[in-house]
Amino acid sequence: MAVKAQVLYDFTAEPGNNELTVREGETITITNQNVGGGWIEAQNSQGETGLVPEDYVEVRKCISIKICFLKIIASFHSQSSNGSDPWTNWNSDTSKNLASVRNSWMSTEQEHPQAYHGPGAVDDDEWDDEWDDSRSSTCYTEVELEAAEGGVVDKGEVQGPARKITLNKFPGFSKSGPEVYLLAKLPPKGKDKISVYMGEVGPVWLYPEVAMECIVADPKKGSKMYGLKSYIEYQVTPSTTNKAVNHRYKHFDWLYERLLEKYGSAIPIPPLPDKQVTGRFDEEFIKLRMERLQSWMSRMCLHPVVSSSEVLQLFLSHNNEKDWKFGKRKAEKDETVGVMFFSQIEAEAPELGLDEVERKCESFNRFTKAMDDKVKELLAVGHDHWKRCTGPLPKQYQKIAKAFQNLSTAFISSGYQGSEATLTDALTATGKTYDEIATIISEQPKKDLHFLMEINIEYKGILSCFPETLAVHKAAIEKVKDADKLVATNKISPHDKPVMAKRVSTMSYALQAEMNHFHSNRIHDYNRVMQLYLEEQVKFYETIAGKLREALQQYTKF
Amino acid sequence: MAVKAQVLYDFTAEPGNNELTVREGETITITNQNVGGGWIEAQNSQGETGLVPEDYVEVRKCISIKICFLKIIASFHSQSSNGSDPWTNWNSDTSKNLASVRNSWMSTEQEHPQAYHGPGAVDDDEWDDEWDDSRSSTCYTEVELEAAEGGVVDKGEVQGPARKITLNKFPGFSKSGPEVYLLAKLPPKGKDKISVYMGEVGPVWLYPEVAMECIVADPKKGSKMYGLKSYIEYQVTPSTTNKAVNHRYKHFDWLYERLLEKYGSAIPIPPLPDKQVTGRFDEEFIKLRMERLQSWMSRMCLHPVVSSSEVLQLFLSHNNEKDWKFGKRKAEKDETVGVMFFSQIEAEAPELGLDEVERKCESFNRFTKAMDDKVKELLAVGHDHWKRCTGPLPKQYQKIAKAFQNLSTAFISSGYQGSEATLTDALTATGKTYDEIATIISEQPKKDLHFLMEINIEYKGILSCFPETLAVHKAAIEKVKDADKLVATNKISPHDKPVMAKRVSTMSYALQAEMNHFHSNRIHDYNRVMQLYLEEQVKFYETIAGKLREALQQYTKF
Repeated sequence: MAVKAQVLYDFTAEPGNNELTVREGETITITNQNVGGGWIEAQNSQGETGLVPEDYVEVRKCISIKICFLKIIASFHSQSSNGSDPWTNWNSDTSKNLASVRNSWMSTEQEHPQAYHGPGAVDDDEWDDEWDDSRSSTCYTEVELEAAEGGVVDKGEVQGPARKITLNKFPGFSKSGPEVYLLAKLPPKGKDKISVYMGEVGPVWLYPEVAMECIVADPKKGSKMYGLKSYIEYQVTPSTTNKAVNHRYKHFDWLYERLLEKYGSAIPIPPLPDKQVTGRFDEEFIKLRMERLQSWMSRMCLHPVVSSSEVLQLFLSHNNEKDWKFGKRKAEKDETVGVMFFSQIEAEAPELGLDEVERKCESFNRFTKAMDDKVKELLAVGHDHWKRCTGPLPKQYQKIAKAFQNLSTAFISSGYQGSEATLTDALTATGKTYDEIATIISEQPKKDLHFLMEINIEYKGILSCFPETLAVHKAAIEKVKDADKLVATNKISPHDKPVMAKRVSTMSYALQAEMNHFHSNRIHDYNRVMQLYLEEQVKFYETIAGKLREALQQYTKF
Repeated sequence: MAVKAQVLYDFTAEPGNNELTVREGETITITNQNVGGGWIEAQNSQGETGLVPEDYVEVRKCISIKICFLKIIASFHSQSSNGSDPWTNWNSDTSKNLASVRNSWMSTEQEHPQAYHGPGAVDDDEWDDEWDDSRSSTCYTEVELEAAEGGVVDKGEVQGPARKITLNKFPGFSKSGPEVYLLAKLPPKGKDKISVYMGEVGPVWLYPEVAMECIVADPKKGSKMYGLKSYIEYQVTPSTTNKAVNHRYKHFDWLYERLLEKYGSAIPIPPLPDKQVTGRFDEEFIKLRMERLQSWMSRMCLHPVVSSSEVLQLFLSHNNEKDWKFGKRKAEKDETVGVMFFSQIEAEAPELGLDEVERKCESFNRFTKAMDDKVKELLAVGHDHWKRCTGPLPKQYQKIAKAFQNLSTAFISSGYQGSEATLTDALTATGKTYDEIATIISEQPKKDLHFLMEINIEYKGILSCFPETLAVHKAAIEKVKDADKLVATNKISPHDKPVMAKRVSTMSYALQAEMNHFHSNRIHDYNRVMQLYLEEQVKFYETIAGKLREALQQYTKF
């Protein structure tokens, strides 16, 4: 299936770099998304092919979720109009619901008339047209989608690209499920109770006394099936046990899926670093992936709720293969996932009115959208700057260097009997200095811009989770708003109404606690990365000034 | 007449800047050479039009000189084969020769079959073909040619572009004239004697005890014909009288023509700054022209031979309009011009053998060509760097600034109850800093690169004179080599042979003195400009580092 993408920002190809110039709003076809290094290969409407930065485009493939989701919704609506009650079909058995959504999806997919042509032959023109109308804020980029899929390519579990996307795209049944929790008969909160209390900044999670950390290090190539299949294994050492466990990317991905399933309705679980099929044994790639897995693990370990989860503890500190396999099976059977996570929340605060809940939700929605925009802008600018600093700019300084050196060489050939050597030596040294400056410039982004980019890529990932999370809250608010109508039509009993209101208040406390956690991390992270960035930038300019001062001293003083 | 040009260096158009991408070796048609600011407008073979840096192209119009010159030569050859002696036609009456060359040129031009179509309708395809074969090292860029013309456009004396070029393109009858001096009956050297003596570095001019300087300042707009015609007048104040005289550009141009006529065979008289028809009353343009006239006048005043010339003294220190007019007429009648300038030289050194003379001449030729190449390379690189520093680079930094400021604005809208202000203030300050850096970057070239460019433009001008000057020497050497044959065919008497050898030795001493003057100036000039450049570059990087350090201090320390 041809993957269409829409261009988000103008991008001008650097000549001779196999790049493709694209303009904002243009539609392109992705011909290879496994190029790596932040690039994709695409073709424009004139049939020209070249590389485009992946951050500059928004892949339209998400339409497949959107449309199929609409079909599922439509099928429920029709069931509803046939007299059956959608509420009774959506009870507290979340595992069944998961299966049901998956089955609905798959049957919908199979029923699609285009499916008969086979996945490679599907003509998606019609889909594109529909997409233009149904575009929504939950339309993510290919990278985010892929990352959210959870290592599908790595595991080779699915065949078609359409199926690839859907499997994990209903974390906690986001849009379908808040009523599961709002109306559920809840067991008493046990030891798994998660407290939200009122801190200085408002509702906050209960933070553990000692924060957990973990180190991801020492990537090693392993193999199985008598060497036929190779993989990279990382050593993960938590601060709690200080004992290393080995994990492959697919294990991280399994953990990601569990965390997403369990917490996705309440806590943004950022996607893992991108998968990559080609070049995944490259040293550079392994290093970057390890760095990103480290950031991801650190974020999970530092989250007061996630860090205490059984599944994360299992991942970090199982004793042996048997423990791990047993724990895995147990985690996969966990029923307190999706919106049911809220059943564990206990907020030590008075119940919030619906207006207040709605206002908070709207405000978080506005903020996360605004920040998402600005993070993407910074990434686009950073990407551009990176390209300039590692491409044309050092080339330019090399040319300056060459021009000084060549002038010096011409001067040396002057045959002049007077003193020429001081000038020619100084000019040669100046040329050498500009060559060094070229190298300094091209190596600088790795020292500063890299970290600024990484933190923004991380935040882009976190922010990409909010639309889903907030949609769960919005859906819950709508249900509470509809309570009177539901009572009138006997869909719910009059006793259910105050229960729903109480529970949506609990959801809001959880959301507020999470937002406060997010803000506090955000302030810390950006404060830290900006300082690192500026410190390195100062060093960079001072180093160049120093080099030039040395070159200057070579000339004859007057 | 369409002006064709050949592209010397690859140039990639910046999108949206109305520029044209051109490749080395490509032929383009110049559609407007009065764009200014170092740009010309050109059209490529696909019919696309846009701006191209003037330093990147070599204009082919010089073919008109080349071809017509070849025709003149051919006409003499045919005279010669008709039995008449070319030597007798080329006697010591230089004024007559000048007239004769001009007349030959004009009649040749009138006889050209293409001339009937009118100057606008001339098809120059055939000329282009010939040009490809007859291309020589004396083929200069349009700018240099124009500059060498001596203010023709300013004076409006000529109509057609073809005639425009030829008038002053025979300084001292370079290729036609060395025999004028080699065989002339010389009057005894009087007070105008010019000494070459042996200094530490070899033959040198006799330098005056006090070097003359002059200041070109205070440009004022004047008008004549009841305000119908406007012009700019500069105040020129020589250190000798410390009394200001007023001169218009056309007076400088008149001086340039006199100096070129008198010294062009022996001393490179660099072209005046470019003429410009449009925008010549712009403040920026007047300032740059004044700066360049200053450099040109300084170079003339500091030249030991040129500075003592009657015509320069007249220009700098005439008392009134009557003096000036009288002096002008006298200077225009000066007969010791062209190769006859050598008749004034007295070298206090043993006569040089012809081999030695030839070896020196070849070596100067090689060096000046090599330096010319490298100066042009530096100019092209500098031009590119200027463009980058005043265009894409500050734009990039403005984008970075905007991205930080926008992120700060998003953060301000967070609604977070915790302490956000330190980070948002710091981020805003960082954005402001990057905006300042953008401005610093865009203004820097005026502070350093400008002077590096100016000195190289000056040297490009000086170096453009050497091929003509060296051609005079080469022609003289050839004549001396041919002496035996000329004696055998009774073209010269046996007594003429040692005279010619002696005189070519004198010419060589003059050339060596001039080369040593050139080298000593060159070393001084480049030493000075490189120091200025590097000092400003150091300040530039230190300023940016300082700004960033201030921005860094805004963040919360850990």
